[in-house]
Amino acid sequence: MARVVVAIDCMGGDHGPRVTVAASIAAVDADPDLSIILVGLSDAIGTALQAAGRSEGDQLRVVHSPEVVAMDEPPASALRNKKKSSMRVAINLVKSGEADACVSAGNTGALMATSRFVLKTLPGIERPAICGVLPSVNGRTYMLDLGANVDCTPVQLLQFGIMGASLVGALEHVESPSVGLLNIGVEDIKGNDTVKQAAELMRLSGLNFYGNVEGDDIYKSTVDVVVCDGFVGNVALKTSEGLAQMLGIVLRREVNRNLLTRLAGLCSLPVMRAFKRTVDHRRYNGASLLGLQGVVVKSHGSADAFSFGFAIGRAVEEVRMGLAERISERVNLLQRGAA
Amino acid sequence: MARVVVAIDCMGGDHGPRVTVAASIAAVDADPDLSIILVGLSDAIGTALQAAGRSEGDQLRVVHSPEVVAMDEPPASALRNKKKSSMRVAINLVKSGEADACVSAGNTGALMATSRFVLKTLPGIERPAICGVLPSVNGRTYMLDLGANVDCTPVQLLQFGIMGASLVGALEHVESPSVGLLNIGVEDIKGNDTVKQAAELMRLSGLNFYGNVEGDDIYKSTVDVVVCDGFVGNVALKTSEGLAQMLGIVLRREVNRNLLTRLAGLCSLPVMRAFKRTVDHRRYNGASLLGLQGVVVKSHGSADAFSFGFAIGRAVEEVRMGLAERISERVNLLQRGAA
Repeated sequence: MARVVVAIDCMGGDHGPRVTVAASIAAVDADPDLSIILVGLSDAIGTALQAAGRSEGDQLRVVHSPEVVAMDEPPASALRNKKKSSMRVAINLVKSGEADACVSAGNTGALMATSRFVLKTLPGIERPAICGVLPSVNGRTYMLDLGANVDCTPVQLLQFGIMGASLVGALEHVESPSVGLLNIGVEDIKGNDTVKQAAELMRLSGLNFYGNVEGDDIYKSTVDVVVCDGFVGNVALKTSEGLAQMLGIVLRREVNRNLLTRLAGLCSLPVMRAFKRTVDHRRYNGASLLGLQGVVVKSHGSADAFSFGFAIGRAVEEVRMGLAERISERVNLLQRGAA
Repeated sequence: MARVVVAIDCMGGDHGPRVTVAASIAAVDADPDLSIILVGLSDAIGTALQAAGRSEGDQLRVVHSPEVVAMDEPPASALRNKKKSSMRVAINLVKSGEADACVSAGNTGALMATSRFVLKTLPGIERPAICGVLPSVNGRTYMLDLGANVDCTPVQLLQFGIMGASLVGALEHVESPSVGLLNIGVEDIKGNDTVKQAAELMRLSGLNFYGNVEGDDIYKSTVDVVVCDGFVGNVALKTSEGLAQMLGIVLRREVNRNLLTRLAGLCSLPVMRAFKRTVDHRRYNGASLLGLQGVVVKSHGSADAFSFGFAIGRAVEEVRMGLAERISERVNLLQRGAA
């Protein structure tokens, strides 16, 4: 396979190099055709490499950057004032062609703003979007936008559908992924004007458009791609996280109620482990910033090394499958078809 | 206690009189100060009464209505063409004062449109909203709007906050319920213009305004009331339903994998039962249509008798606590304060 080079923003996320470097080492060890450029404070990265008994080599290279974007820093401020941040330098490496992709667990807003500023959007794409993947009854569902665009036009929603379908085509090897438009009812008359017009555009676009879907369809494997604006997508995602956390807390509470319930909990451990494995959010880590001239993947800020590894894997796969070209092709084709 | 009369739309929901009549019988048996008017096709209601070995009496009265609103009927059509539907007649009974409240598991859109047309909104209220309740880590969270209003102005969101706080004050006996505004980040700069302006209004309103909350806060007991527009609220609710269903399916799949896992599942039954009891959506059934001159409660269409009983209970409690007056008072007070 062709060599892929990924630039890792080692300082991003809640845990920094401890997680990002450990995951990078595991990733290169598992893939001889992968090289990683570790970007960040070289001291901190050096310490993390040393802790793993490793040093720089063919597959692991360190690029020092003296600044760090804070997790709560406004994107505009990061863009203006942190030109030597690990995030910015990692994205610059994609721009210069030294790296094929960038992965960061840092500040989402700053990552999107910086990626957009440095890499630019693909020709024809109005707005980049964030696309994540969620477990569903019979597989997985891709959803976008997850928060980059609070207000969207019908054309932008159409483009999200095109980009999401391109991503599923690349990663899941599905010929013509089905696309659903998130709404509050399946009937055509439901929803606001933006959604109604977007449905009309999608219907005419040549996409494999399923029609309107509702919130529960995200987890029902109804479609491959669910399209919505970033406000709605972000709420749906966070609501899911909150519900899953609450169910976990309530279940633990019930298990710990007394000796008998603890024993019952112990007996069911193998089942619960298998269950958790299936729905483990760590396996779904890595949201793709779509519509850019380059591959950028955002990891959850709280990711551990196991989880961060999935984000790296996502980036590698997107590079190997030529995602940006696929999106460009589809946009040109479908927009020409719709015109 | 003062006698409460509730009109039940017996034909609404997926199961009709089989569920609605059974739940009504259980409700009057448990509460000697409750009377129920069973509205619908008298034959079908009679059959359901007979099946339970009951007949009309002091606490149970039948009012015949020859029409039924279909679950997928457009609200405007139901309003125009179904003037003798069980739903319409039940709401008419509230208007005429024969009943204090109406409960229906029927078509949500039709119920809202008909209630609004027949009962009218409270003075000062721009739009009625649907408020539901969800389990959270340390109690329950009320959320509105759940789908009546796809687009909302900042003033309408403020009024949702006022109405939600009134509901929590009445049902949970909380002096000054905390209200959060659903957004895609807690910082003031997050979200669209509508949400930003709504936050400003809420801050000045005299409400116990917590500030912005995110999707996961719904289940974290962060606030008593979560306010959002009906599009976002509906998606959050349906997404939660879908996730819960999927987790149930995946768990059952793991339990049924082989003899050993089935045994493990059997051992953990008491724990799982206690767990399910805590988060059982049936116990949270009953969404309040707020802002109307009268109490109307919407049950989930798929509710069983146990679940429908909670919706009846909600309606009775709202009547006893004088919900409509509480909302009017608060609206007058807060809007005067904000002016």
